[in-house]
Amino acid sequence: TGRLAKGDTDLHAGPYLHNCNGRVKMADQMHTITLASRPTGAPTAENFGHETAPIPTPEPGEVVVAVHYMSLDPYMRGRMDAGKSYTAATQVGEVMGAGGVGEVIASNAEGWSVGDFALGMFGWASHAAQPANTLRKLDPKIAPLTTALGVLGMPGFTGWHGLMEYGRPKSGETLVVAAATGPVGSMVGQLAKSLGLRAVGIAGGADKCAFATQTFGFDACLDHRAFEDAKSLRTALKEVCPDGIDIYFENVGGKVLEAVMPLMNANGRVPVCGMISWYNAGGVGAGAEATMTVPALWRGILVNHLSVQGFIISDFWHQLPEFLQDVAPKVASGEIKYIEDIAQGLENAPEAFIGLLEGRNKGKLIVKLV
Amino acid sequence: TGRLAKGDTDLHAGPYLHNCNGRVKMADQMHTITLASRPTGAPTAENFGHETAPIPTPEPGEVVVAVHYMSLDPYMRGRMDAGKSYTAATQVGEVMGAGGVGEVIASNAEGWSVGDFALGMFGWASHAAQPANTLRKLDPKIAPLTTALGVLGMPGFTGWHGLMEYGRPKSGETLVVAAATGPVGSMVGQLAKSLGLRAVGIAGGADKCAFATQTFGFDACLDHRAFEDAKSLRTALKEVCPDGIDIYFENVGGKVLEAVMPLMNANGRVPVCGMISWYNAGGVGAGAEATMTVPALWRGILVNHLSVQGFIISDFWHQLPEFLQDVAPKVASGEIKYIEDIAQGLENAPEAFIGLLEGRNKGKLIVKLV
Repeated sequence: TGRLAKGDTDLHAGPYLHNCNGRVKMADQMHTITLASRPTGAPTAENFGHETAPIPTPEPGEVVVAVHYMSLDPYMRGRMDAGKSYTAATQVGEVMGAGGVGEVIASNAEGWSVGDFALGMFGWASHAAQPANTLRKLDPKIAPLTTALGVLGMPGFTGWHGLMEYGRPKSGETLVVAAATGPVGSMVGQLAKSLGLRAVGIAGGADKCAFATQTFGFDACLDHRAFEDAKSLRTALKEVCPDGIDIYFENVGGKVLEAVMPLMNANGRVPVCGMISWYNAGGVGAGAEATMTVPALWRGILVNHLSVQGFIISDFWHQLPEFLQDVAPKVASGEIKYIEDIAQGLENAPEAFIGLLEGRNKGKLIVKLV
Repeated sequence: TGRLAKGDTDLHAGPYLHNCNGRVKMADQMHTITLASRPTGAPTAENFGHETAPIPTPEPGEVVVAVHYMSLDPYMRGRMDAGKSYTAATQVGEVMGAGGVGEVIASNAEGWSVGDFALGMFGWASHAAQPANTLRKLDPKIAPLTTALGVLGMPGFTGWHGLMEYGRPKSGETLVVAAATGPVGSMVGQLAKSLGLRAVGIAGGADKCAFATQTFGFDACLDHRAFEDAKSLRTALKEVCPDGIDIYFENVGGKVLEAVMPLMNANGRVPVCGMISWYNAGGVGAGAEATMTVPALWRGILVNHLSVQGFIISDFWHQLPEFLQDVAPKVASGEIKYIEDIAQGLENAPEAFIGLLEGRNKGKLIVKLV
């Protein structure tokens, strides 16, 4: 699990540890990974630069952290392209952005002490200086630190908000979500089950499908790799969704979208939080291929009176407490389960990220730095 | 105008007029227009059959009407195709469906008398028997009868509901709607203006654009026929929408949709009530062409957090009183204007309908039968 063993915490304390006790300082230099060049299609190792720099000192109001855990998420692919994606593009030469959990090693901010744990946007970096007011303090005694990046963090919150706000789930309905063992899909599926819906997952590989049904309680899970096209996937979906589909939680696009749309019931809902299957196709969407036409897609929305809602969870951080209040106890009790896939070492982040875009991870992908 | 002159009303009273007074009976036979064959692409005259039959007698609970005005609407094109559209397909040989205003010539229903005017689904027919509980009684002294088919009927209600419910208009925002002089577009544009939005119309032809700005008060109107592709239309739209587009009220699809989507602002809303530009392309959507890809369209929904809502107004008839309460006084006062395009004679309905799909009508298209 992601829970820290005691004693790890000051190994990387660095030169700003106030109560410096004479140990060897491990990290006078920090390591970062930058966007070296923009990928064409799938990113390769060459698109990432490895750099070192002096660990910064905190400006007034800031803290400096040593990053223990860094999140890798599909949205980062969009930021590697030029032009607007969900969020502003990363510039070539800039440090790649990422959420992470860090331990405060120097504080110049009221209310923050060395040894505190913080959730923040620390980037692909071993250390970072950040304004304290952009951070959320974490208590490792309440939940494993890694959960703040997954089941109780951005991905879990994305699933919860998208399902509850735009999915408008009703007992007896049928929901379909892909990447069913991922941190968004597994949250959506488990919430749907707890609300009395039929939950059908789609995942890449028989092992993931087994996880989806056995660990997360999906009623059925289809391995999209077993179907060569949208039509054959649709035929299989039809069998496991005998009453049609009321909610399609969209996080993949591509073949799954094409398979699902004609099966949507009247007044169906389609929360859209991502479309990972298209992210490598020359930019998000641009150049990606689909056999479905725009008129056919648009017609489906009209004829079935669908509600399609794109969203980005960062617009809703003010609702995070409500999410945590609802879901954190269920995670603590084991009612909501999660899987984490931990890669070791910042230097391996590019390879782990490339694997994420290919679906090689199993569960929430996190890089352990410390 | 559509207001009936007194004295017209019993000319077509037929054999069931209870207080028969010996005048010549004009219509022992009724005329209907049927779906003779399914169109491939644009309908032609050959797709319609002209038939006669004895005027029916009312069963218990029914009335029989002589239709005075019949509505022609784009949705009817979808019903000519096999398979599910908004509503069930018309079968070959069946009378084409349509809303109309009829005068009761025989009543077997409590509360209904000969001479009453009724709004109902009478079809492409000179006469019809209908259960009285499917009809709405109209008082020609309150509003011209034709308005029940347009500005105060299904199309006006569609514009009102779609804008207010899914468009969520806010003062200062920019709205775009096509078919701007049609009964839906002109309602949407005028409501938007009254709420403090910038309203930009799109219409087919300079004369319609002049109507849009001069009669309906649109801030600008673009003639889509003047632009050879979506890109050039988009360039022109950008100029008249300097702050981007917050609401795109979708009733046409095609080139306009493609031009608009990249100009949508974050958190934009897209109520979808129709897509007439694709209706003739081998069925609604099927076979219709677009240069935009599904991934690009879907990406726009995600990246700009758009809310896209397909709807059919017949799901919301229970809200009609609210619509009429809001809009009828504004129509009576002239604050909300409307244009009607009246075709003469049921036998000319097919040609008028074919023209509707080509955009040859100006304003709400109605067939006057009496």
